[in-house]
Amino acid sequence: MRQAIIHAPGDVRVEERDRPTVLKPTDAILRVSAACVCGSDLWPWRGIEPVGDAHAMGHEYAGIVEEVGSEVTTIRPGQFVVGSFFASDNTCEICRAGYQSRCVHAELVGGAQGEYLRVPLADGTLVATPTLPDDDLIPSLLTASDVLGTGWFGAVAAEAGPGRTVAVVGDGAVGLLAVLAAKQLGAERIIAMSRHATRQELALEFGATDIVTTRGDAGVAEIKDLTGGLGAHSVIEAVGTQESMMQAIRATRPGGHVGYVGVAHGVELPGMELFFSVVHLHGGPAPVRRFLPDLIDRILRREINPGKVFDLTLSLDEAAEGYRAMDERRAIKTLLKP
Amino acid sequence: MRQAIIHAPGDVRVEERDRPTVLKPTDAILRVSAACVCGSDLWPWRGIEPVGDAHAMGHEYAGIVEEVGSEVTTIRPGQFVVGSFFASDNTCEICRAGYQSRCVHAELVGGAQGEYLRVPLADGTLVATPTLPDDDLIPSLLTASDVLGTGWFGAVAAEAGPGRTVAVVGDGAVGLLAVLAAKQLGAERIIAMSRHATRQELALEFGATDIVTTRGDAGVAEIKDLTGGLGAHSVIEAVGTQESMMQAIRATRPGGHVGYVGVAHGVELPGMELFFSVVHLHGGPAPVRRFLPDLIDRILRREINPGKVFDLTLSLDEAAEGYRAMDERRAIKTLLKP
Repeated sequence: MRQAIIHAPGDVRVEERDRPTVLKPTDAILRVSAACVCGSDLWPWRGIEPVGDAHAMGHEYAGIVEEVGSEVTTIRPGQFVVGSFFASDNTCEICRAGYQSRCVHAELVGGAQGEYLRVPLADGTLVATPTLPDDDLIPSLLTASDVLGTGWFGAVAAEAGPGRTVAVVGDGAVGLLAVLAAKQLGAERIIAMSRHATRQELALEFGATDIVTTRGDAGVAEIKDLTGGLGAHSVIEAVGTQESMMQAIRATRPGGHVGYVGVAHGVELPGMELFFSVVHLHGGPAPVRRFLPDLIDRILRREINPGKVFDLTLSLDEAAEGYRAMDERRAIKTLLKP
Repeated sequence: MRQAIIHAPGDVRVEERDRPTVLKPTDAILRVSAACVCGSDLWPWRGIEPVGDAHAMGHEYAGIVEEVGSEVTTIRPGQFVVGSFFASDNTCEICRAGYQSRCVHAELVGGAQGEYLRVPLADGTLVATPTLPDDDLIPSLLTASDVLGTGWFGAVAAEAGPGRTVAVVGDGAVGLLAVLAAKQLGAERIIAMSRHATRQELALEFGATDIVTTRGDAGVAEIKDLTGGLGAHSVIEAVGTQESMMQAIRATRPGGHVGYVGVAHGVELPGMELFFSVVHLHGGPAPVRRFLPDLIDRILRREINPGKVFDLTLSLDEAAEGYRAMDERRAIKTLLKP
């Protein structure tokens, strides 16, 4: 089968590999309907995270179940399924509390940018649609696997909701879908921070009420101006740099909530400043599985259209161009068709 | 009047000073019934925080109202009152959300280790008892001013409550009163981390169910052993060092809550570790005013006896010995009688 392999920064090739097989009785094998390139895939592409040995890329997926292991009881071949980038048993105490990305048996799912994919802990990880979905819904269903689930978690962690002013730091696909999530969760006012016209447009379409084009201290000052000098109730951080984290913390009012979902690269939070900020801080790798049934429902009912973040669709063979386009910010997010 | 003045690290003297007067129409002047030495007073005493110019010490107080400014409407001379170390208007949006320590008009109250004290924003800051309290309740009422209110906030921030296992890092007066708070809030299991026999005893009396004597990585491992390998649901940090903060974060299960109330000196939180911990982090200078009416009620009803943290009572003139005894951990907390 064909699969995207990273060899070095900037060097992703689609190569022939063996089809994955059931390794454990709790595994499922999927025929991937659609995969995509994640903002976090750009870290090794850019050489910010070490690449190490050449390896298969991709952790966002939706597809048809091809085969299941002998202990899989609820997932059946032929079903259309969406799963999270962290496999989880969905039965342990941590999963039951809604933190499936830290399941006691959590395992990263890897190699989704390929024709077939092995998903561990299939019963706990995958959520099947009631029937095969219409083709035009597949991009949106794919977003539920990570980028929508992550934006949604950011909004939930930031306690976006009725009566609250929400600011979103980061206009990548996660940030844009955090805007969508805040809107769905009933936020009164949603401030998107973006300097890019096409991203601003999508933010407004997803429910943003205000656009702030400045960043850093100037961005914080503008958020304060928009909130009577107090700061936002809820700020979603969807970048993962020192600047974006501090911008998020400083744009939040005392007692407000920061939901951070950007993987924090090289970030050090100054304890004294954090202490006197009196904000709530919550985030991390999103427990996407917690939200999947609800998100799939909203998509199947056509209440939300998160698939709009895909402004570039390529065949799997063109994966490298998909990375390049996102790296150069020519594309918000690339969908890959195996 | 007599007042404790710090001149340099280790040099606190009780000297004659002018009685404070009403400076603003919203001020009240109190005759201090009891004051005390705070763990945070030890930072300049130890030279960890710069002393700067010689200045009056103390920010915990309970006393009788002597005089009020022309705009004070609810507080009257003759009342017994308790207030927070941060004066607050208690009417702004931040106060109404329960974050009075970050009131838009917040002002530190200073110089409580003296015979008289000026309290700004008297109507917002002070809570009066219905009648003059019995003398034996004064130490407990004094604790509500900071150390109890701070421990209580730590427990609330850590979401201590029914069904939850709570661990407390720090066996100073704040940590011990966080144990008491967790018990009152209905926590199922309360693990106090302490290596000192007298503090362990008080922790057990306040409601601790387990004592852990190790700290750092060993302490974290012991908390995990006691919680099925998962970590505590709620961890209260009541020290304020790098080690204690990391101990608190690492002892918390994914999705759990860290309430931190130790003033974070020289603390830097590693972003990547915090991200993957998936804990909730909340803390800062306690909005004591939020809790004062409830805490005063519990004390007047004799449901709680937080005054037990005072194991040394001295006259104001002996303030320096009160600092020394706490610094050398001979005393948990020193009450000073003006």
